[in-house]
Amino acid sequence: MFSIAAVRVTPILIADPPLLNVQGVHQPYTPRTIVEIETASGVVGVGETYGDTDYLKLAEAFAPTLINSVLNPDLLPAAVRDCAERVELARIDNTVQAEGLRGSRSLGKIASSVASAFEVAMYDALGHETGLPVHALLGGKVRDTVEYSAYLFYRWAEHPADGYAFQTPTDDWGAALDPAGVVAQAQRMAADYGFTSFKLKGGVFEPAQEVAAVKALAEAFPGQPLRLDPNGGWTVPTSLAVAAELEGIAEYLEDPTVGTPGMAAVAAKTSLPLATNMCVTSFEEIPEAFRTGAVQVVLSDHHYWGGLLATRELAATCRTFGVDLSMHSNTHLGISLAAMTQVAATIPTLRYACDSHRPWQAEDVITRPHTFTDGRLPVTDTPGLGIELDRDSLARLHQRWTEYPEFHRRDDATAMRKVHPDFTAPKLPIW
Amino acid sequence: MFSIAAVRVTPILIADPPLLNVQGVHQPYTPRTIVEIETASGVVGVGETYGDTDYLKLAEAFAPTLINSVLNPDLLPAAVRDCAERVELARIDNTVQAEGLRGSRSLGKIASSVASAFEVAMYDALGHETGLPVHALLGGKVRDTVEYSAYLFYRWAEHPADGYAFQTPTDDWGAALDPAGVVAQAQRMAADYGFTSFKLKGGVFEPAQEVAAVKALAEAFPGQPLRLDPNGGWTVPTSLAVAAELEGIAEYLEDPTVGTPGMAAVAAKTSLPLATNMCVTSFEEIPEAFRTGAVQVVLSDHHYWGGLLATRELAATCRTFGVDLSMHSNTHLGISLAAMTQVAATIPTLRYACDSHRPWQAEDVITRPHTFTDGRLPVTDTPGLGIELDRDSLARLHQRWTEYPEFHRRDDATAMRKVHPDFTAPKLPIW
Ligand SMILES: [Mg+2]
Ligand SMILES: [Mg+2]
Repeated sequence: MFSIAAVRVTPILIADPPLLNVQGVHQPYTPRTIVEIETASGVVGVGETYGDTDYLKLAEAFAPTLINSVLNPDLLPAAVRDCAERVELARIDNTVQAEGLRGSRSLGKIASSVASAFEVAMYDALGHETGLPVHALLGGKVRDTVEYSAYLFYRWAEHPADGYAFQTPTDDWGAALDPAGVVAQAQRMAADYGFTSFKLKGGVFEPAQEVAAVKALAEAFPGQPLRLDPNGGWTVPTSLAVAAELEGIAEYLEDPTVGTPGMAAVAAKTSLPLATNMCVTSFEEIPEAFRTGAVQVVLSDHHYWGGLLATRELAATCRTFGVDLSMHSNTHLGISLAAMTQVAATIPTLRYACDSHRPWQAEDVITRPHTFTDGRLPVTDTPGLGIELDRDSLARLHQRWTEYPEFHRRDDATAMRKVHPDFTAPKLPIW
Repeated sequence: MFSIAAVRVTPILIADPPLLNVQGVHQPYTPRTIVEIETASGVVGVGETYGDTDYLKLAEAFAPTLINSVLNPDLLPAAVRDCAERVELARIDNTVQAEGLRGSRSLGKIASSVASAFEVAMYDALGHETGLPVHALLGGKVRDTVEYSAYLFYRWAEHPADGYAFQTPTDDWGAALDPAGVVAQAQRMAADYGFTSFKLKGGVFEPAQEVAAVKALAEAFPGQPLRLDPNGGWTVPTSLAVAAELEGIAEYLEDPTVGTPGMAAVAAKTSLPLATNMCVTSFEEIPEAFRTGAVQVVLSDHHYWGGLLATRELAATCRTFGVDLSMHSNTHLGISLAAMTQVAATIPTLRYACDSHRPWQAEDVITRPHTFTDGRLPVTDTPGLGIELDRDSLARLHQRWTEYPEFHRRDDATAMRKVHPDFTAPKLPIW
């Protein structure tokens, strides 16, 4: 029983390429929150989560309540939720577009996302205290590597110039705005990292182009797993038309349309499995979705579901009801990638490659960033998450956070308006 | 990562009073299997499970496969199941009466029960290796004590004399064969151990007497939680008649009838919650039961469900679907009671008192047997399960096992025939 001596919450901004999605385009910088939990013996555990204002505000309010308590992941869900009830958050609605990518918002979902950072930090600290890797603290790994999927994005070559002296150089991936560009991106992903599974973020162009892109991928990578995710951009009929085109080509279709009833209507008429990280992102949303057969694959995400224990519980619930599990990725750093890998290693039924935004977020706050080999990461057996916080990097990215308040909240629509002044966050579905 | 140097499986017989149930009467001795896992550093973790022949045979076959592997609870379910496929078990059917008390049998259920003993032993060993209590290894305790329910049985004063020189003296509880006897037993349970919640094992007499017993308890303990469990002894109409009598008196009715469809038929017409440790004792049985509203309370049991992690996963699945959780007890020793207490301490939604057969099984294999105070057990923070194996006691009870092969398999019907020669295991429901 290890007691907590100090908790630090550090907001940072990390560089993000101009990746396109249905809600707009990624901003040059995106916020993340880094949590450090230091025990009485001086061991430090780390976690990360969303950095948008409400999440940060809640994390900062919650952190001091942990001082002198013990490392106890099970107490977190209720404690963070209680804290969230007391903290005045700006708005619980669905109008913030980037956050709209994860479905409906609620106080409980924000609390779960914040709790996840503290939970991961506790597990990392517990691991350092006991000498055990996080996977052993979760029940034990059932595999030695975790497979990830290449995350393909339509994208611009560079962010629009807008007068900022950005500290980060533009990347050298170039633009990808048509099927050929997507295939070229995939080929580099395969060559550089060995990915054999590919996911295309859709909802950017009209469905015909995105279907053509997936078909082009199928031609370039015959028989390999492919996914398409328009983040709810399509109507039910459009979803069905796309599904008909991609049956036998895609392994699953991710959130073709918004809402559980819409997903159920699509699922009823296609043999293509439907996956979601939008209509089912909390335990409350499971019963209706499972009862109506709306989803065949739930995309777990320890940030959404409240941590690593919750991810395992989600996996068990899915397994019980014959629903598959895969793993969603947000814009994350190496701390979360380590946590994703550790928990994924413990779930026997996880048979899909996990999503990861890497390598798009090239910056990190750990000393030895993860590198994919054959599209996989090793499941480390060293204590905790098997990573080390890079304090210089953390300080630098926090300094950036203090300099650019306009990026404290992710907002893909505003970023899009720099190029398309009339752009408004769409009311889904679009096509 | 701690490696396993030795595994010991020890069958024992423990003394059991003549407790009555729908399948007959407890035999003088009942078999249990004790598992010890010793790590390379000499730490020993202990677990226990059923001792009936098939369970013991599987445990003995599985034990040597663990040598030189690491303490990894997550690998157990599949590994024990694989082993079960290879070991020739005597019979997978429902004719064995005592085991009929836990619903339908299957290879998977036997494997889960055997896995649970190894899993608990691993957690105990992990706790001793890391200095952490088992609850901390499961995610952390959310309460400091766990409440138990007094387990009331109709019973004879003594086992019928049958020529054995039993090593165990008869107990001094006397007979309980009518409502007054049940109330007297409850009063002693309350006085000696502080229990405030009471469960009566029914299915012994015709329902009217058992209803009368519960009503007598309600009069003796006004407003206190009461349960009645006939182990599937009643038809649907009888169950509904009993439910009508006990609405507002019992907190739940446990397995009034057999099978999920029957339970659903009862549940549809009563406001009294229905609990089960018969029609839902594996994850496979959950979807139908939840879909049809057959059960409102699942009685968890780490022996049934495959261990402590599985118990947590069951709890999460129930919580997701708005189904309550309580805890079943079999004929257990102090090892399992420690494990039950540790896992119960980690489940926020466990709001019912847990069942325990204590104090009926007075013998134990630990040096400091648990004692209830105010009907509760403390959740220990010492390493592992917080218990110590009593090797003298283990040797003595194993010696007894070698002497009485006729008790290697629990069989309540045969025991009943010593007094009622024409008794046959009933085909349920009876009344
Ligand atoms: Mg998605
Ligand atoms: Mg029962």
